Amino acid sequence: MTKVAIVYHSGYGHTAALAEAVAAGVKRAGGTPNLLRIENAAQDFGPFLDAVSASDAVIFGAPTYMGDVSVGLRAFFEASSKIWFTQGWKDKLAAGFTVGASFGGNKDHTLMSMIVLSMQHGMIWSGPGVPNAQINRNTDAGGAHPNRIGSALGVVTQADNAAPDVTPPAGDKEFGSLLGERIAKLAAKLKA
Amino acid sequence: MTKVAIVYHSGYGHTAALAEAVAAGVKRAGGTPNLLRIENAAQDFGPFLDAVSASDAVIFGAPTYMGDVSVGLRAFFEASSKIWFTQGWKDKLAAGFTVGASFGGNKDHTLMSMIVLSMQHGMIWSGPGVPNAQINRNTDAGGAHPNRIGSALGVVTQADNAAPDVTPPAGDKEFGSLLGERIAKLAAKLKA
Amino acid sequence: MTKVAIVYHSGYGHTAALAEAVAAGVKRAGGTPNLLRIENAAQDFGPFLDAVSASDAVIFGAPTYMGDVSVGLRAFFEASSKIWFTQGWKDKLAAGFTVGASFGGNKDHTLMSMIVLSMQHGMIWSGPGVPNAQINRNTDAGGAHPNRIGSALGVVTQADNAAPDVTPPAGDKEFGSLLGERIAKLAAKLKA
Amino acid sequence: MTKVAIVYHSGYGHTAALAEAVAAGVKRAGGTPNLLRIENAAQDFGPFLDAVSASDAVIFGAPTYMGDVSVGLRAFFEASSKIWFTQGWKDKLAAGFTVGASFGGNKDHTLMSMIVLSMQHGMIWSGPGVPNAQINRNTDAGGAHPNRIGSALGVVTQADNAAPDVTPPAGDKEFGSLLGERIAKLAAKLKA
Repeated sequence: MTKVAIVYHSGYGHTAALAEAVAAGVKRAGGTPNLLRIENAAQDFGPFLDAVSASDAVIFGAPTYMGDVSVGLRAFFEASSKIWFTQGWKDKLAAGFTVGASFGGNKDHTLMSMIVLSMQHGMIWSGPGVPNAQINRNTDAGGAHPNRIGSALGVVTQADNAAPDVTPPAGDKEFGSLLGERIAKLAAKLKA
Repeated sequence: MTKVAIVYHSGYGHTAALAEAVAAGVKRAGGTPNLLRIENAAQDFGPFLDAVSASDAVIFGAPTYMGDVSVGLRAFFEASSKIWFTQGWKDKLAAGFTVGASFGGNKDHTLMSMIVLSMQHGMIWSGPGVPNAQINRNTDAGGAHPNRIGSALGVVTQADNAAPDVTPPAGDKEFGSLLGERIAKLAAKLKA
Repeated sequence: MTKVAIVYHSGYGHTAALAEAVAAGVKRAGGTPNLLRIENAAQDFGPFLDAVSASDAVIFGAPTYMGDVSVGLRAFFEASSKIWFTQGWKDKLAAGFTVGASFGGNKDHTLMSMIVLSMQHGMIWSGPGVPNAQINRNTDAGGAHPNRIGSALGVVTQADNAAPDVTPPAGDKEFGSLLGERIAKLAAKLKA
Repeated sequence: MTKVAIVYHSGYGHTAALAEAVAAGVKRAGGTPNLLRIENAAQDFGPFLDAVSASDAVIFGAPTYMGDVSVGLRAFFEASSKIWFTQGWKDKLAAGFTVGASFGGNKDHTLMSMIVLSMQHGMIWSGPGVPNAQINRNTDAGGAHPNRIGSALGVVTQADNAAPDVTPPAGDKEFGSLLGERIAKLAAKLKA
């Protein structure tokens, strides 16, 4: 059984909704997701570090605040230094997703921060591998297409100022599921 | 008179249209724009290097191809190493803009490449300083708002598969003009 | 009088030693430094935000932990969103410095995070503008040269596993002072 | 047989020396390296694109010029857009190496450019997975240790102003070999 840890922080529930979509994708590929929600920067990260250690892959999630990962996820990253010393996560597969209010907002920098952390650990990074929707700016107003924004480093989604059950739109959530599916499949190959 | 060099490469004319808009903004602020269009990577960049040396500020422009500046602009950057040796552009103001088919497409990486080049030269970097449009995904289908994408490092615009006179939309072009205006004003301050 | 806020977090005192060097450089240029040391991620950042608002320029400092700014500085960045809403720091000058155990360690990513934050605020970014030491790898074993590592985005320094009074070496501290000097001078020009 | 394409540009032979070391590492792991040296930005990249298509993994190499990949490699990246349209390289493993005159020089940005390109193609990125040498700044003057600089995104090496047979030093070349070895092994797993 391929185990995929999903470590995420969510401020208003939109990232959590994405995390659920990612988990659904992991299941779709026959994997077992482990949703690990960071509550605050000061919590004891020991159990989460152990859970990642026991997994075949890890998917990081955070809202983009001021152009980078939220403090909650950053605190987890910093706490992972104790694993780094022994390179305990080496060769695991890693990926990431983020949510923000705009299409841009430096969300690629958020994903870069996740990539840097993953490379520090000697992990292997995969993006979603979903081509741009190749749609014009005004032909997906409903947000039905996965990767409507055109993201390659990870899953970039956009949420309006509304409740997590209506935003990000269905296409963004499916984009998250496609990432979960891909990571579960690739992790299965790597552990074989 | 504040002189602003605009060094850009354009593949299909969309970046050129943006460059015109940036130049219009420079004029709006009482500055003198110098439009320098790169034709190909093998051209003699000597005159362009001299033109930047004679300017108070420089604004770089390129389409984003495969997630970074086009080869045309990269070739100019590489040729600027002869200026780098004497730090001849030190303390100039620098900024940038880019165009791509999607909202994302790693256009922030394109701008990061421009920032890195500018820092190598000891120049000072300014973004557009235009807040996000704070609009929901489907409320600007006509593209009337500047910074509809939510870009901070420089001017990020999006062009449909159509002629440069209709795309990028008017809001994107105004975004370019706002950058030109800002850079001309800041450069005037710095040279005072 | 040009006022320069220096907002930094220091884990073991090495970043604090650099901050002192940066402050000395600000003074050297006739400016007034304001050293603001972040104690922990949960502190009330209100007074620090006010201090930056009252300054002409801000210089950020943090150790690089796991390839990015420490949680302490990240928490300050996140707290600055309340200023972002009104773009209260627009047009201020910004710069940064970092310390790490190795020459690399993704310290450029740390500086990129500072640049992204600064651009979100509509601030203007300046690197140190100090050319590489142009020295071979084994000709500066004593660490006497500023910019021995070859950093352009900001001040990158390296500390051995020893006390802050002996490491980072003198050249790295002078590199910090040169940044402070430059920022104070440029900020004076911009406020004129 | 696991096939690993090594696509690189070399200005003065130092990157070529590294490419040879990477190829030696691929062989050490039982793989077959294919050294593809870019001569200039205007060459016909068709055969190189085909060679990558026929390989299980690709390792990119370039000197860092003005803080990014050299124009030669950038031209190859741009030419790869024809593969991008059909996502023909999806799921291949990718990695990279670079050489520069200083320890820094924004070489991480060079590697970021390679990562961005790889993610655009839906490839999977692996760093060298070699922990920092954890050595003080003046204890490896001879350059015997792999990863003396502390690089995680890819292989970062440094060359003095001397011939490629003496610089980069032996430790840097072994660092390149370790990358080749790792990529050949991981690619074998992924193709299984």
